[in-house]
Parts: sequence; structure tokens; C-alpha cells
Amino acid sequence: MNVQAKPAAVTTGPIIGSRKIYSSPAGHPDIEVPFREIALHPTANEPPFRVYDTSGPYTDATTTIDLTAGLNPIRSAWLAKRGLDVIAPRAVKPEDNGFVPVDKLVAPCPAERQVLAARDGTLVTQLEFARAGIITEEMIYVAHRENHGRAEMAEGAEERRADGEDFGASMPAFITPEFVRSEIASGRAIIPANINHPELEPVIIGRNFLVKINANIGNSAVTSSAAEEVEKLVWAIRWGGDTVMDLSTGRNIHNIRSWIMRNAPVPIGTVPIYQALEKVGGDPDKLTWEVFKDTLIEQAEQGVDYFTIHAGVRLAYVPLTARRTTGIVSRGGSIMARWCLAHHRESFLYEHFGEICDIMRKYDVSFSLGDGLRPGSNADANDAAQFAELETLGELTKIAWAKGCQVMIEGPGHVPMHKIKINMDKQLRECGEAPFYTLGPLTTDIAPGYDHITSAIGAAMIGWFGTAMLCYVTPKEHLGLPNRDDVKVGVITYRIAAHAADLAKGHPLAQLRDAAISRARFEFRWEDQFNLGLDPDTARQYHDETMPKEAHKVAHFCSMCGPKFCSMKISHDIRKDSERMAGMETMKETFKAKGSALYVPEPAGD
Amino acid sequence: MNVQAKPAAVTTGPIIGSRKIYSSPAGHPDIEVPFREIALHPTANEPPFRVYDTSGPYTDATTTIDLTAGLNPIRSAWLAKRGLDVIAPRAVKPEDNGFVPVDKLVAPCPAERQVLAARDGTLVTQLEFARAGIITEEMIYVAHRENHGRAEMAEGAEERRADGEDFGASMPAFITPEFVRSEIASGRAIIPANINHPELEPVIIGRNFLVKINANIGNSAVTSSAAEEVEKLVWAIRWGGDTVMDLSTGRNIHNIRSWIMRNAPVPIGTVPIYQALEKVGGDPDKLTWEVFKDTLIEQAEQGVDYFTIHAGVRLAYVPLTARRTTGIVSRGGSIMARWCLAHHRESFLYEHFGEICDIMRKYDVSFSLGDGLRPGSNADANDAAQFAELETLGELTKIAWAKGCQVMIEGPGHVPMHKIKINMDKQLRECGEAPFYTLGPLTTDIAPGYDHITSAIGAAMIGWFGTAMLCYVTPKEHLGLPNRDDVKVGVITYRIAAHAADLAKGHPLAQLRDAAISRARFEFRWEDQFNLGLDPDTARQYHDETMPKEAHKVAHFCSMCGPKFCSMKISHDIRKDSERMAGMETMKETFKAKGSALYVPEPAGD
Repeated sequence: MNVQAKPAAVTTGPIIGSRKIYSSPAGHPDIEVPFREIALHPTANEPPFRVYDTSGPYTDATTTIDLTAGLNPIRSAWLAKRGLDVIAPRAVKPEDNGFVPVDKLVAPCPAERQVLAARDGTLVTQLEFARAGIITEEMIYVAHRENHGRAEMAEGAEERRADGEDFGASMPAFITPEFVRSEIASGRAIIPANINHPELEPVIIGRNFLVKINANIGNSAVTSSAAEEVEKLVWAIRWGGDTVMDLSTGRNIHNIRSWIMRNAPVPIGTVPIYQALEKVGGDPDKLTWEVFKDTLIEQAEQGVDYFTIHAGVRLAYVPLTARRTTGIVSRGGSIMARWCLAHHRESFLYEHFGEICDIMRKYDVSFSLGDGLRPGSNADANDAAQFAELETLGELTKIAWAKGCQVMIEGPGHVPMHKIKINMDKQLRECGEAPFYTLGPLTTDIAPGYDHITSAIGAAMIGWFGTAMLCYVTPKEHLGLPNRDDVKVGVITYRIAAHAADLAKGHPLAQLRDAAISRARFEFRWEDQFNLGLDPDTARQYHDETMPKEAHKVAHFCSMCGPKFCSMKISHDIRKDSERMAGMETMKETFKAKGSALYVPEPAGD
Repeated sequence: MNVQAKPAAVTTGPIIGSRKIYSSPAGHPDIEVPFREIALHPTANEPPFRVYDTSGPYTDATTTIDLTAGLNPIRSAWLAKRGLDVIAPRAVKPEDNGFVPVDKLVAPCPAERQVLAARDGTLVTQLEFARAGIITEEMIYVAHRENHGRAEMAEGAEERRADGEDFGASMPAFITPEFVRSEIASGRAIIPANINHPELEPVIIGRNFLVKINANIGNSAVTSSAAEEVEKLVWAIRWGGDTVMDLSTGRNIHNIRSWIMRNAPVPIGTVPIYQALEKVGGDPDKLTWEVFKDTLIEQAEQGVDYFTIHAGVRLAYVPLTARRTTGIVSRGGSIMARWCLAHHRESFLYEHFGEICDIMRKYDVSFSLGDGLRPGSNADANDAAQFAELETLGELTKIAWAKGCQVMIEGPGHVPMHKIKINMDKQLRECGEAPFYTLGPLTTDIAPGYDHITSAIGAAMIGWFGTAMLCYVTPKEHLGLPNRDDVKVGVITYRIAAHAADLAKGHPLAQLRDAAISRARFEFRWEDQFNLGLDPDTARQYHDETMPKEAHKVAHFCSMCGPKFCSMKISHDIRKDSERMAGMETMKETFKAKGSALYVPEPAGD
């Protein structure tokens, strides 16, 4: 075994200038919701600024991380009360780990967890509880989390909310557990939370909540250890990934997944068809329903929280892609299209969709209905293939809901700005407001190396229009595998897009952070400006490149204008002169009355 | 003199994979418009792809650059026919170079140019010619440039244009010189082209043309040579800056400006109040109309193409900023606000606006009416101060037009997404469709270090809505002075925003490049994909980090999926199967007729 699972194997410790805190909703001391508090300079006369925290125990200075033990299973006590069956786990098969030779086998994570499954006749999914009028601990947790731990509605919150355009979203100024329940019951929101993922810090995804982002991780051919893969997860959530999709393939993926699941505080998504394909030697034609079904059970028992299922790629839609500029660009979509063509049959995912629902319900794995026919160039955006599939996803949503499953819908892709809102509106209509989860979209195809930016433009817009979760794109998109820096840049870029969307929607909490950092900027609290930003390290580094001295951290000017004439300094003078200005206002009236040239309404055009 | 003015002092040579070409409009062999042609792989079966080229002679492999001689004054012959006066240049004063000691003096650029000025009773500005029904060489030049050198309307261009939402813009599928003239005559577009800048390759700025971007450059305290400052310009236009603003202050700026002007193929803008302030020792209170006026003449005679003039910061608006979160953040705006307060007088820029027009008309310096009260945080967006100033800029626009001057209007700033379109619509209404020139806007305040991205989101949107030119923001915004890499990232980011806007507006040429790069992507022409992108070097580098071998440049797969199952490869199989698929379509109908389960319209929900 080559796994290094010592505490030092992953990045730990708080983000600079911050500390982890936990806050419990009133009446629920057993529910501890994590937040990050950013300390402000004493001159600010403001309490520490609290922000949503995706990073899990890794940023808690008081916690020791032991990857072999896994994270504290905070949900176990909640799950224990729900009458779930403890079942014998499915036996691991050689193909689960890609037929890896014994000497290359990575051992599974030794953290022991019972495998749970639904008992006949009892409720298991968050959707089922919600419909039954039952508020789960997960619902209480996310309500408190979405409120940033506030105990009650902030003063003025209603007014702030009014300053936005929500395009039909209905975000209350204060989130109650009952509101969460009703949103889940209606299908407008999901809490992806496999009952076999007790380590999860629950997250809600829906258009009436804060916009979320997903980061993808995956192994590479040279991966040497499970700890390296866990570190990718830890790094992505440190900077703000709300969920993480593990797109790994090849050898050891079952066992490495066990390390990821046991050490993941965020919902983990996968694309089971990738592993199923490996099991049949990489040849799509050899895929069978049986292999796929077995893979679903395998991953569900490990605790994966949501599965991308490309059940909308129907045989009849494949010919619609033949004239496209870039054909089918979704890996899962192309696998299924290939299978349909090879067998000249309807997709087994589509034909067995009901059975898939039954399996996923049993563990409360949420659907992420895949957009296998998403456009890979803006020339293909919003075409017949894409929209035919979206309509089918709408049909499948209703089936999954009827089966008690939570559902979100994946969306494009490459879409120029003027075609973005059409996507959102159609998705809401076809899929009954099930959460939309989009990749970008990329608003132009011409900037390889900068597709985090081409896509952030589209992501911010579609987030504003109602998308619930944005799948990040890194600078390496189309070119290669993202490294550590790329992942960070991708996550920060998507936090920007999500936050810009929250602001524009008028989310009652979003504007608070902008106001706090702007006050810091105006008052020359440089450290506060860095720390209130999404990436304090980079902000500080950039500042120090020009003005490295510690003294400059308290300077009442910056490198742009220099000390001689600083516009913000002048503004302070103006503010100080406010009494005098009040006098001016009076004088102005006087001057006007006298007809003075100083206040003539029309400009001097001579 | 410490100026290194050897050819090697600035970056020269073509962008990789490209070559500079010149194309003349039919009947005008004397007008040579530059383009960049990107060579494609022989398997593409496509001619070289032609793109707009801002980079000037520096990327022409056949030209030798000599900074002491300046660029070839291509406009001289055109200007010679216009009956302009050759005047004795204003004598250089010690304060022009910031009272620099003789031993620290940078010598002026030795390239000799006559100083031209309007002769009484003759036309001088592009606006005056346009109104008189006269098509200038500059108008012919920009028409050909906007058409990418096409001789006539491309087939299908009208249909492509229809695929967009132009919000009231009226871009023809083919730009004629007469269309250019009519747009300038109406004030909807400008060609910033000082008659003392004969080296200029003319550029048109207006909502019915390709969206342009501006890059800012400026000296730093440690600047050692004029060549270094020229290199900043050369670097910014190499990657796509359409215009460059020189925001330098301090010593030697007059003489360094002479180097910049004589070696600038793009319009150069300045903010004359910065230099005027230096002349009075940096104290805004000491500014006078006389010093400012003298600075206007000084810079106009040097050839500056547009001046930012903050004449909309009126005394009465200053109190409106007192309650703002971030006060006044425009340097020019704060200088004028300070002056107004100190003297308790109306702004001398406002009072002498007519005189300013007379000076600027004389050399055809275009106005860039500054937004001195733009918001510095989204809390301040669209407030009373900002909009009061914008209304005044509308009044001033009409005065400048009446005086024969070309005008554009500067815009914000920090604006959340839902407040962006209000800015555009109000600007169009108040300012009679004069071109809007915006800084970003930044859609959130919380990401110092990433404000190229927070602002690219807003820039793409406002460009789509009708903004004619986008002022770039670099990653160093709010933090420090941009270095070479920052300038490149800023320029590329803004090229993305401008292009995304062109695409969404339905510009007839924009989609061609996306289609070309998407074909290259689909056909695994890796080199073509790199070279058709905005930054071939970075794309290639990113690709090579994962797949470094030359063989991989022709690989029919990439690092994301690997050779085993590549979605694009599968799409090619699908395309190859098109005949078989045609058969399938027939079979599908047969199946349907037979009631086969394979093609039932409703999903299998069991």
C-alpha cells in the first residue's frame, strides 16, 4: 500500500485572517453548522465578518485530520433514528478497481461505516420526508447555513432583497426549515445526501437559495496515492467548491473513492457510466444494463451523493447531431450515442430509468440528469438535439419525482450570451423548476487557455436567471488536465460568478460582503480588504509586489495614485466637510435665488 | 540621455502562426489596411483565417522598427490635402517635464513632424467632414478594416446577423465608407485621430461597429527609459488593445509622450488634468484654467487623440457623494471635486467648456467625457451623483457637437449585473447615442486580485447592450501597478468580453472565428486551435503541460478523455455513419408504424 494518510498529507489550517466557528440553530444544540469568521481591524469597529464555509474540518485549527479514520460522521445520529436497514455490503469485485494487479492495489480506506439502505415502507429520501411534512436535520442544517447563522431576519433585509431582479425566483429574507422543506417537496431544491455519506455537511441546491458551484476532480495516469486524490478534494473545497464531482477512471478507483467519500464534507457526484465502461474494457458497445446497474449499487453503497445519468440521449436524437459543428462533446453522451448506434436500440438508461430510480431512492442518491447532447461550440447552441434531450429530461424528472428521488438537471456548455436565457427559461418550463446545474456556459469559443473567463461570463448570467449550481471550468479546459493552481483559479472564478448572480438576484445576504470590503477599501484597511476577498493570499501578494513594506499595509494611499493625490483621501476630506457642505447647500439656494452664474442649470457653452 | 531606442528595445515579430498582411480597399491603392492572417493546417482545406489587427508595424516581419525615427506617418499625405496650417509649436516649458533636473532629462523623440492646426474657415474634424458629406481617407480605412478586408458582403452574412439581439444597434452586414460617414455625422461613432498623429492606423468607435477595448499604461517611479514606456504600448496592442491611454505622471512625461506618440499606431488618450496638477505641485487647489488650457494645447500639439475631460463634476454634485460607501474613486473626479470645494466655485472645466471645445476642435482631439463620479462599489452604483453627472455629460455632448468635436462618454465602474442595462439605456438617451466607453463594470467588489474577471462579466454584458469601447481592468486593480503579464491578461480578457458582445449582438463577422476554431477542435487540428485562439502561446503551453510530445499535436484525442474513448472521435464515427443513419431514420418511421417499444414517445417509467 502506497497511501500516505498522515495528517500532513492534505492542506489544513484556516484561510489567513479567518477562523472556523460553529453555530447551532435555536433549539438544536446537536446540529453544528460551520462558518468562517474574518477578523477585522480594530479601527473598523465591526464584529468579525461571517461567511459561508465549504471547506469542512480541514480549516479548523482545533481538529486533527486522520484520513484513515475519515471525518466525524455527523449525520450518523440523525440517520440512526430513521429506521434504515443495515445491509451486508456488496462484495468488491476485481473490475471495481479496474483489474489492478495485487502489487499495485491501493488499499481501501480503513474507516469502518455500516452500509445503510431503505427499509420497505419507510421514508428515505429528503424528498419523501419533505412531502410527508417532516423536517429533517439536514433541512434545519441548510436553513441555518443559508442564513449565515443568523437567528432572525436582519434589519433591512427585505429592502435589500428588493434591490435585485430575480426573474421569478422567490428568495425569502430569512430561510426557515419549513421553507427548505417546502422547496424540496416541490422539487425546486435538493439536498444531495446519500444515507451512506454520514460525514456530509449538508448543502441545498435550488434557485431560491445561494447559488452553488461544483468543482471537478479526477485521477491522472500517474496518480500514486489516495491521499493525493483526497488533497484535490480538500483543495477545491478550501477555496469554495460547494460540491465536488469525482471523474476518475481506471485502476483503483473503487478503493480511492472510499478514501474520498470518508473524507468528504461536501456532496460528491460521479458519472457511473465512466466506471461501467472501464469494467467492459473501454468498449461502449459492450456496455450492458447489468454492468451499469451493478456499478450504481457499488457507488451508492460507498456513499456517492449524486449521479450524472445520461438517460436523455435517446436513439432518435443521435442523428440530430450529425450536422453539428462539434458533434457530441459530452463523454457520457457520446458513450451512450455510440451504444445506441452500435446496437441500434434505445438507450438502456432510458429503458431502465424506473429501475435506476428505485436503486437511487434506496440510498437517497440524487439525480443529476446529464446533458449528453450539450453544444460544444456556440454554432451548435440551442439546436434540435440539445432541446430534444432537455425535453426528455423533463419527462424523466417527473418519473424520478414520482419514485421519490431528488433531481437536478445538467445544462450547457457553449452558448453565446443572447441564447443563454432561452436555456434557463426552457429548463424551468420543461423540468418543473428542478434545479438547473450548468457548465459555464462558455460565451465564445475563441479563447483556449482562458475558458474560465469565457464561461464565467455565461455562468454569472445564467446564475442570475435562475441556475442553482454552476459547474466550474478551469483555464485548462479543452487543453489539458488542471493542476492545483488551475483548480484554485477555477473555483475562485466561479465563486465570483455565483456571487455576482446572488447580488443581481437581490439575495438578502450577498450585498453585505461587498459593503464590508468596500468600507475596508475606503478606510484604507488593507489587511481587511485582502481578507474579506475571495483569495486573501493572491490579493496580498499582488499588493506587495508594488508596495512590499509593512508600513504600506496601513498607508492611506495606494500605488495607483500614490501619496500625492489619492481620490479616496479626497473623498474623506469631502465627508469631513459635510457640515460645511450642509452650509453650501444653503448657500446654493441663496446663490440660485440671486441668479449667480455658479449654479446655472445649463452648461457654459461659450 | 538614458533612452535605449534600438530596434531590439521593443517586442517585434509576428504572433506565432500568423503573418501581417495589408489590403487596400477597391480604388484606393494608397490606403493599406493591416490584418493578421492565421495559417491553417493543409488538412483543413481552408484559406488562412484573417483577423482584425491592432498591433501595428511591430508584428510585421518585413519592417525594421526604429523608435528614434517613429513609425511611418501614413496619414501625412491625406492630411496634406486638407488645407491645414503648419504652426510654430508651443515652446516646451520646464513644468512640462515635471521640472526634471537636466541630468535626469530624457531627450524628446528626435522624429521630426510639423505641427498642424485648423485654418480658419476650413474643416478639420472627422465630424465636420462627415457633416459636410465628405468621406475622408480615415473613413475609407476603417470601413475596410471593419469588413476584415472583404471586398463585398459575405454570402449568408445577413442571416448570421439575424442570429443575435442588438438592442437597437444597426450593424450592416457590410460596412461602406458612406455608412461610416453617416454614423460619424450623427455622433454615433468617432474616429479619434489628432491631425498631429500621422502615424495612426485609424480606428472607429461606435455601437454599430466591432466593440473595441482600451488598455491603460503609465510610468512608475522607477521608470528608466522612454523605450520601456513605448514597450508597454507595443505589448498592449500586440495582444489586442485598440486604443491606449497613457496615464503617466511626474518627471519627463512631456518628452516620454513624444516617444509614445511617434511610435503609436493606435489612438492615444490622456487625462490632461493629471499633468496640469503636476504643474502646480500636486495641489488641486492651485489648479487654474490657464494651466489646464496650456496643457491641452501642449498635448494636442504632440498628437494625443482623445482627452478625458471631467467637466461633468459640478460643484452642486459634490455633496451627493458625501454619504457614499466609497466616495469619489475617479482620480480626475476627485481632483475637480476638491478644487470646487476649496474655491467654492463651479468647475473651471464646466465654465470653460466651450473654450475647451475650440482647442480640441483645432487639432481634432476627441472628447472622452470623464465619469468623475462613477461608483467605486456596487453599493454606490446608479446613485444620484452618478446619474446627475451623466445628465450633464449629455448637455456637454451637445455643446461639443455644435462646436464640431467628436465625443465619447465614459461610464462605470462598479455595477451589479441587474443595474448594468439601466446605465446603457440612460447613456444612450442622455447623450444622443454618442459612443459609450466603460470601465468594466465590475459586477462584485469581493474579489481583489481577480477584478479582470469580475469586470469582464459586466464588460461583456454592457458591450452587448451597446457600449462601443471597454476599458480593460487588470488583475492588479485596487492592489498595485500591472506588470507585463497583468497587461496581457487584461487585454486578452477584454478581447473575450468584446468578442462575446459582438457575437451576442449578431455582428456578421464575429461568429466566423468561433466556427473556425470549433472546426479545428473537432478535427483535432491542435496547432490550428492554438493559433486561432486569442493567445496561442498560452494555449500551446497549457496543452503541452499534459501532453508535451510533438506527436500529441496531431493526436486524435486529448488528455481529458484519453485515447480510449474520446467523445469527439465517437462523433466522427456518427458522422461517418450518416448514410446508415439516414437508413435509421427510415427504420425509425417503420418501427413507429409497427408500434415498437424502441421509439415510444413516453419514457419507460417502470
